[in-house]
Amino acid sequence: MAATILSAFQVEILIPVAALIGILFALFQWYIVSRVSVGAATRVSSNNGYNDSLLSHEEDGDEGAEAKCAEIQQAISEGAESFLFTEYGYLGVFVVIFSAFIFVFLSSVEGFSTKKLPCKSDPSQLCASAVANAGFSTIAFILGALTSTLSGYLGMKIATYANARTTLEARKGVNKAFIVAFRSGSVMGFLLAANGLLVLFIAIILFKLFYGSDWEGLYEAIAGYGLGGSSVALFGRVGGGIYTKAADVGADLVGKVEQNIPEDDPRNPAVIADNVGDNVGDIAGMGADLFGSFAESSCAALVVSSISSFGLDRDFVAMSFPLLISSFGIVVCLITTLFATDIFEVKGVKDIEPSLKKQLIISTVLMTVAIFVVCYIALPAKFTINVVGHEPKIVKWWQLFFCVGSGLWAGLIIGFVTEYFTSNAYRPVQDVADSCKTGAATNIIFGLALGYKSVIIPVIAIALAIFLSYTLAAMYGIAVAALGMLSTIATGLAIDAYGPISDNAGGIAEMAGFPHSIRERTDALDAAGNTTAAIGKGFAIGSAALVSLALFGAFVSRAGIVAVDVISPKEFVGLLFGAMLPYWFSAMTMKSVGKAALAMVEEVRSQFRNIPGLMEGRAKPDYKSCVKISTDASIKEMIPPGALVMVTPLVVGWFFGPQTLSGLLAGALVSGVQIAISASNTGGAWDNAKKYIEAGASEHAKQLGPKGSDAHKAAVIGDTVGDPLKDTSGPSLNILIKLMAVESLVFAPFFARHGGFVFKWLGL
Amino acid sequence: MAATILSAFQVEILIPVAALIGILFALFQWYIVSRVSVGAATRVSSNNGYNDSLLSHEEDGDEGAEAKCAEIQQAISEGAESFLFTEYGYLGVFVVIFSAFIFVFLSSVEGFSTKKLPCKSDPSQLCASAVANAGFSTIAFILGALTSTLSGYLGMKIATYANARTTLEARKGVNKAFIVAFRSGSVMGFLLAANGLLVLFIAIILFKLFYGSDWEGLYEAIAGYGLGGSSVALFGRVGGGIYTKAADVGADLVGKVEQNIPEDDPRNPAVIADNVGDNVGDIAGMGADLFGSFAESSCAALVVSSISSFGLDRDFVAMSFPLLISSFGIVVCLITTLFATDIFEVKGVKDIEPSLKKQLIISTVLMTVAIFVVCYIALPAKFTINVVGHEPKIVKWWQLFFCVGSGLWAGLIIGFVTEYFTSNAYRPVQDVADSCKTGAATNIIFGLALGYKSVIIPVIAIALAIFLSYTLAAMYGIAVAALGMLSTIATGLAIDAYGPISDNAGGIAEMAGFPHSIRERTDALDAAGNTTAAIGKGFAIGSAALVSLALFGAFVSRAGIVAVDVISPKEFVGLLFGAMLPYWFSAMTMKSVGKAALAMVEEVRSQFRNIPGLMEGRAKPDYKSCVKISTDASIKEMIPPGALVMVTPLVVGWFFGPQTLSGLLAGALVSGVQIAISASNTGGAWDNAKKYIEAGASEHAKQLGPKGSDAHKAAVIGDTVGDPLKDTSGPSLNILIKLMAVESLVFAPFFARHGGFVFKWLGL
Repeated sequence: MAATILSAFQVEILIPVAALIGILFALFQWYIVSRVSVGAATRVSSNNGYNDSLLSHEEDGDEGAEAKCAEIQQAISEGAESFLFTEYGYLGVFVVIFSAFIFVFLSSVEGFSTKKLPCKSDPSQLCASAVANAGFSTIAFILGALTSTLSGYLGMKIATYANARTTLEARKGVNKAFIVAFRSGSVMGFLLAANGLLVLFIAIILFKLFYGSDWEGLYEAIAGYGLGGSSVALFGRVGGGIYTKAADVGADLVGKVEQNIPEDDPRNPAVIADNVGDNVGDIAGMGADLFGSFAESSCAALVVSSISSFGLDRDFVAMSFPLLISSFGIVVCLITTLFATDIFEVKGVKDIEPSLKKQLIISTVLMTVAIFVVCYIALPAKFTINVVGHEPKIVKWWQLFFCVGSGLWAGLIIGFVTEYFTSNAYRPVQDVADSCKTGAATNIIFGLALGYKSVIIPVIAIALAIFLSYTLAAMYGIAVAALGMLSTIATGLAIDAYGPISDNAGGIAEMAGFPHSIRERTDALDAAGNTTAAIGKGFAIGSAALVSLALFGAFVSRAGIVAVDVISPKEFVGLLFGAMLPYWFSAMTMKSVGKAALAMVEEVRSQFRNIPGLMEGRAKPDYKSCVKISTDASIKEMIPPGALVMVTPLVVGWFFGPQTLSGLLAGALVSGVQIAISASNTGGAWDNAKKYIEAGASEHAKQLGPKGSDAHKAAVIGDTVGDPLKDTSGPSLNILIKLMAVESLVFAPFFARHGGFVFKWLGL
Repeated sequence: MAATILSAFQVEILIPVAALIGILFALFQWYIVSRVSVGAATRVSSNNGYNDSLLSHEEDGDEGAEAKCAEIQQAISEGAESFLFTEYGYLGVFVVIFSAFIFVFLSSVEGFSTKKLPCKSDPSQLCASAVANAGFSTIAFILGALTSTLSGYLGMKIATYANARTTLEARKGVNKAFIVAFRSGSVMGFLLAANGLLVLFIAIILFKLFYGSDWEGLYEAIAGYGLGGSSVALFGRVGGGIYTKAADVGADLVGKVEQNIPEDDPRNPAVIADNVGDNVGDIAGMGADLFGSFAESSCAALVVSSISSFGLDRDFVAMSFPLLISSFGIVVCLITTLFATDIFEVKGVKDIEPSLKKQLIISTVLMTVAIFVVCYIALPAKFTINVVGHEPKIVKWWQLFFCVGSGLWAGLIIGFVTEYFTSNAYRPVQDVADSCKTGAATNIIFGLALGYKSVIIPVIAIALAIFLSYTLAAMYGIAVAALGMLSTIATGLAIDAYGPISDNAGGIAEMAGFPHSIRERTDALDAAGNTTAAIGKGFAIGSAALVSLALFGAFVSRAGIVAVDVISPKEFVGLLFGAMLPYWFSAMTMKSVGKAALAMVEEVRSQFRNIPGLMEGRAKPDYKSCVKISTDASIKEMIPPGALVMVTPLVVGWFFGPQTLSGLLAGALVSGVQIAISASNTGGAWDNAKKYIEAGASEHAKQLGPKGSDAHKAAVIGDTVGDPLKDTSGPSLNILIKLMAVESLVFAPFFARHGGFVFKWLGL
């Protein structure tokens, strides 16, 4: 065994320190944002300390608007709380039930025996019993669920805390507002990345007290962490997605159409739910989703590495490689953030998008160097990776650098392609806007075609990363490629969360009656945010594809499958059925948005009927009950698609066995990636085509506009169709493919033992 | 070797006789249709002979309208000729070039040597040289292309012949019109099924003169027949699909919007192109498509059977099993047709759909019996099928009955599910219509969700058929299951062709200024035709899935691949890329419809400007040049998607080898099926939701209507979006998956010998 430069002791210090640095940095950013006071007679201009310029004295707008701002923020915050408590109630029940499932199913593998079993790596020794494994898997599942919940909660908290502050800072200029929104986004990014890493590290250390040197058992149990994270993310994404679109449509249908009050009017009971929705769907949902990806790719890499020579040699440093990548990622992102907040200055509107793009490029370049360093210091010069059904593979340390790097750079490519297809600075979106001239139908046709087309390069980038990584280091290569794509997650999330925060800031400016100049500034932030949201979705999908494949590989290996041969009927039928699942899932979620919107309409109507003085502005609407209605409706509507995702692998694995399940996972993966990318980009393009016409920034755009023209009306229809595509069904598909894979991995021993009874019964 | 009941001599008689019966029956039906005279002062009422009642004397409408009818029919017929000649010009060039490709690529397998090679089945004997094989493959390719072209041509001829006759018969009642339209459809169905069978049979007999007892070589060469058929079908479907929608949109944009003349007005130069488009897209395209499926499934079954014990034992009767199934299918369909034309009478509008559904059920039930008979008399009691990478499979004769039957009945299930999701007699379409209340956006959302949902049961039906057939008889089982689904092709095509004929009849009634009562009758026929068109597309997709899988199996076996293991990187990357291809292809075809429509708009505008007296009805518009513009535009636009489909397998197989190609085929298959089904059904549902509102037949429908209401406008937008989905990109995807598979099969020896040089060069 070749020694590593880093010692085990250094690793044990390095990982938690990196996590703590991330958390402290997040808290520090939060502190800076908090110094923008909202609705305060007590506002004090402080002249000492960091970033003093944030509180300049040349503010415009009046104290009344500021107080209104605080009131609206309070309402959004209350709405977010209301959603969280309802959601957590349901999630709690789900986690309890599913924990029982995991424990019972996994314990049943050896007939609920608590007898120690021979270790897989060394059958002469005794390792944990099936019941103990089941217990630890269950604990890991609960830990993952809790951390994911916490990630979503904290993200929503900071976002609802920052929105009004962004509005207020917009009075001083677009640069001030940008910094606040971006800092707030980075709070979420760093908290999530650091928490995820820290909890995982602590869990490993604690589990190790029981498992000792049985790395294989330990990491298989740890896989539950990924399952917990992703299950909660599924609720977050689907529920949040249905929620935000239901509130959006509900608010518009009653407020604008029936009551003739302006959009974002505070008298509309659903307007807060609408703003809460942005935080619930795009912030909490995205956060939980990416946390899930992070947890799963780490788990996949750990599981695969436990059956490599690292695991067999019990090389703690090399085994910690995935966690070290994430640790270095936090530091790289920290430096990258400073470029946006302190080194390059955003002076005007035109600097916003380049500044965000620079973040992507800087973090990718720095991370490339960091990866090289980690590979050099944490890996033995040479090691072997076991390959299912083939000879073990001998890997050199620098080959792993290319694996991680390929994922990282594929992510950057996906980000830029997504930008090209969804930003209205380029031809594709302008063509879609142009097609609005001949009506909504051509707009829809061109938008769908754009989404389909936008799939090509990302799929090729993912395919190349997969091919390179697999060729160099088999499934371990894929797993670390996924980690590579997610290594700059803190920056990615900061950019991503910046979008909905700016969106909310615009809404608050509108509701609080700020002058037109302020709204123009927040609109500029929001437009850039639309593109970054699409980029974030691109990352989420790309990483989901890699993660799923790595989990798929881990599942195949754990279930004892030698090959997934799709010309065998069991696998092919699974492949075909799996490729259908994303369609089934999308059909459910898209229809759910429609149904949930109707429930919202009922509530808003009844408030306008029953609260005296509401229309006159004398009474405050009951935002909370409206939010509750929306929450309940969305959670109810998310149960069928959620059940589809959670139950299908269990049923298929149990009834038809791991071979059919492996086909199903491959089918869902390759089909889901395409729909997810095309749905997100189509929706993003329609949204920005509408904004392109509204902004009227070029000769061409002016021909199509202004607001209210026939072309604009056609563009609005496209935008509305795109809403459920880009915010509900599209991004949820990431979780579908990841979750089915990690669930299969966790239940693999059960399927290997008891699965496929239908075929066994038929004698096949 | 067990003997079969049927002798070789009997088979040699039976197959051509069945084909001739089919052709004679088609000609007889044509004769009956021809007795409805069009635009004739010379019309003679004949009192003797069959089905005399067709020419009753209680006709209404005047001689002037009848003459106009003839004139319009003439114009449509001229337009169809114009399209055909232009298309054939391009097709000719393509066939010549691609023939050269086939010959050169396949000859190069053994370095262009004309030396006889050892037979694969018995290496002690000498069989055909690689150059000879290449030559016969090329001849088979040309034959397939010619037969496919002929099928499309004849279908278009009878359809353009029958449309005006249907209009005229509608004067006597809906039942008369129905019979004419249905008989004309059956002319196409029987001609196509019988010609396809006859040409294939003759080719086998002639090739046998050279190949002697080398069945494997013979049937591998015959695979070119499928490739030729499908290549032409690709042109037919994509070109026709772009054509019909370009003409449709072009005619509407200039005629209705700019010139303010009614829809289907004969002064509009594009109106004939619009009507030609129905024949070109839905008749010729569908015909070529299903002919391709028939040719390919026959070839797949023959290739697979040539390496079974039939082939090794040179059992001519058993080897002819696929052709015997098709022969019996013709007879069964003939009997089934009599039920519609002579046994059950269609008395009113409400009988039309049940009568067509009865056709499906009767043909399926009768065919089930016929399959049993064929299995009993043409198969040895027991035989072996070679399975790639596994032990050969021993199959009993009755097991093959279940294989063929499973395909047949899966087709029926797909038909009924399609009807459920696209007919406005059921909830799904009514829900979509209802969603129009809140505008076009909800209509689109609900329509997309409906399409996604409609995929579930067809995919499960296909999966079950695949599983059962494969389990019983490996890839041979799949191939004959596909044949089973296509065994009732004559009836399926009759039902299918009936739709566009009725559609044209409605257009002619409108243009010729027939009274309202006539238009109502043709509208009723048309509404039923919409659903049958969707059912036809369902069949086409279902059979394409089975055929592709069978071809895939044949390719894998011929390329010497042992397993398609998707956890290997080469295969997985192929799988992911393949799943993306249908999206790429759809993006191209959908955008092409938009671009081609613009070219049409230019031409129509220029005619209105430059032909004096056109608007006043004093001059005839230049239909032909308009049709030519549309033809040229559509053929130009179809080259990129066509090239994508034709070139991709060649490049991937050549550069990356048969393993990656096998992954690609599996990916394209499982992904393409989903988009194809959902696109067709979404489009069909939108069309019928619009018709539901227009017809206003129920309380609910009346609330949404009438024509011109907001809900109706929203429904029209959905219908327009659905046009390219259901008539261009959706149905073309069948051909994408089939064509890539058959092309891979034909080029398999080349790929096996020279393929994958990129990987070889990289040392992988």
